[in-house]
Amino acid sequence: MKNRITELFQIKYPLIQAGMIWNSGWKLASAVSNAGGLGLIGAGSMYPGVLKEHIKKCKKATSKPFGVNVPMLYPNVEKIMQIIVDEGVKIVFTSAGNPKTWTPFLQKHGVKVVHVVSSVKFAVKSELAGVDAVVAEGFEAGGHNGREETTTFTLIPMVKEKLQIPLIAAGGIATGRGMLAAMVLGADAVQIGSRFVASNEASSHINFKNEVVKAEDGDTHLTLKELAPVRLIKNKFYTELQSLYQQNPTIEQLKEKLGRARAKKGMFEGNLEDGELEIGQVAGLIHNIKPATEIVNEIITEFKEVKQTFNQPLF
Amino acid sequence: MKNRITELFQIKYPLIQAGMIWNSGWKLASAVSNAGGLGLIGAGSMYPGVLKEHIKKCKKATSKPFGVNVPMLYPNVEKIMQIIVDEGVKIVFTSAGNPKTWTPFLQKHGVKVVHVVSSVKFAVKSELAGVDAVVAEGFEAGGHNGREETTTFTLIPMVKEKLQIPLIAAGGIATGRGMLAAMVLGADAVQIGSRFVASNEASSHINFKNEVVKAEDGDTHLTLKELAPVRLIKNKFYTELQSLYQQNPTIEQLKEKLGRARAKKGMFEGNLEDGELEIGQVAGLIHNIKPATEIVNEIITEFKEVKQTFNQPLF
Repeated sequence: MKNRITELFQIKYPLIQAGMIWNSGWKLASAVSNAGGLGLIGAGSMYPGVLKEHIKKCKKATSKPFGVNVPMLYPNVEKIMQIIVDEGVKIVFTSAGNPKTWTPFLQKHGVKVVHVVSSVKFAVKSELAGVDAVVAEGFEAGGHNGREETTTFTLIPMVKEKLQIPLIAAGGIATGRGMLAAMVLGADAVQIGSRFVASNEASSHINFKNEVVKAEDGDTHLTLKELAPVRLIKNKFYTELQSLYQQNPTIEQLKEKLGRARAKKGMFEGNLEDGELEIGQVAGLIHNIKPATEIVNEIITEFKEVKQTFNQPLF
Repeated sequence: MKNRITELFQIKYPLIQAGMIWNSGWKLASAVSNAGGLGLIGAGSMYPGVLKEHIKKCKKATSKPFGVNVPMLYPNVEKIMQIIVDEGVKIVFTSAGNPKTWTPFLQKHGVKVVHVVSSVKFAVKSELAGVDAVVAEGFEAGGHNGREETTTFTLIPMVKEKLQIPLIAAGGIATGRGMLAAMVLGADAVQIGSRFVASNEASSHINFKNEVVKAEDGDTHLTLKELAPVRLIKNKFYTELQSLYQQNPTIEQLKEKLGRARAKKGMFEGNLEDGELEIGQVAGLIHNIKPATEIVNEIITEFKEVKQTFNQPLF
């Protein structure tokens, strides 16, 4: 059986591993691709030379399709895009920018382009820009996030009403139940981030992975809306930030408090007090760290089992 | 076929119409109950005498079970609860307060008690307080809302992990697809609010209903978090409120701006500029006003059709 996304990417399962900064290197991406999903390398935290190395290692580690996620506001985006094309990567997920800018260049080089959005308006703009598919990401997602605060449950069917091209749901999905629910709402596939942070292959620090496993309902919050909204675990840095908000800070004061490399400090260096710890609300459903292959298999097995239970009358 | 919720309430479909202030009177509740769902009268905007009249009319208009929603912070809550018991209402949904306070009294009088929560913590507390079922309501819901900002997509499976008693999902649900997705995530039933605002039988003003039909993605926002968080359509009142927020207002200034009877002004009197217009994000999926019976039938028909399409291999 095939669907529009498995055909577009030539993969077994319509399950994409998000290209997350400080988490998604070649080890994670190749493991997910080898397991039948689509692995993505997260270029957002890589210098161009580092990305090149990750792509080369990923090609050695898997013969299956994989892709790269590129936040287009990245300062070295021209170099990044050239490396992607030169290395023969065939799938790129773009975010944080205008999909018109890079889609024609990438497609001219045989690359399938998917753009990540958080609203109906930008989903429609992406389709008009000619992308091959759209990721619609809900408010519950970790990391950087939309300003509309539209949740996965309402965003997916609203985008579905307006979109012709394939639709990938993201935000809040970590299980087979979640994958099935997203597809019931109208998605052709799912993009899963947080669940793969708690994998052996994620390149983030073990302290961060353990914190994700510990997180429960209410432990994350979308903040820094005046800069670029980001969902964080409520740690010491977050608490300090909230104290600053009590004083009605200027944008400059917020930027100064954020400083540089907060995300690296938290997620890559494992400084749980002073770093930014970006994760989705669904961390509350993540209870262990395991190999990415097992994560993929568990999600697909649960998807099929739950789907089976809905094959009978319910009421 | 029966499930835990249809058995608990002795209804045909596990579909509950939310007891919304200024919207849910006897006309709407009886229409939904007659259509096979569970209609709720919203006591939150009624003086005790008015509620009594609505209950009496509802009993005449339907022989099916119906219930009353009671926000427990309501000033006349003792009178309200006595009327409910005296009139022989058998189902009460409580919200905004401690479920320990009224559950024993109501159950002693043969009333099934359901408590509305927006977090895992209060779902567990409700079960310990002895309620018969829990409504877990996500961030996308209209009206008053939790502070944790947990969305339906993540809240339902997180609550499901911890709860033994039946679970009703609310927030973002307006269609058969949404109902099925919520049940895939672990709910036994759904509570639907916004969709029934856009019904002929809702007691709100036609101006408000039309505004709900017009609303799109991004047109609502959860605000007034310092008082009681509420999701509003971004109208003139909302814009003025946001301007006030720019000036770092005190709680007293916010209360003064809110004033009295804003919700009545907006939803019941149809003043779209100066009133509070409470609605869920899912308003973006609501495109028409129709009889409540048709709404119930459409949701159940779509539920069954979509469920049918998932009875085959997908990939």
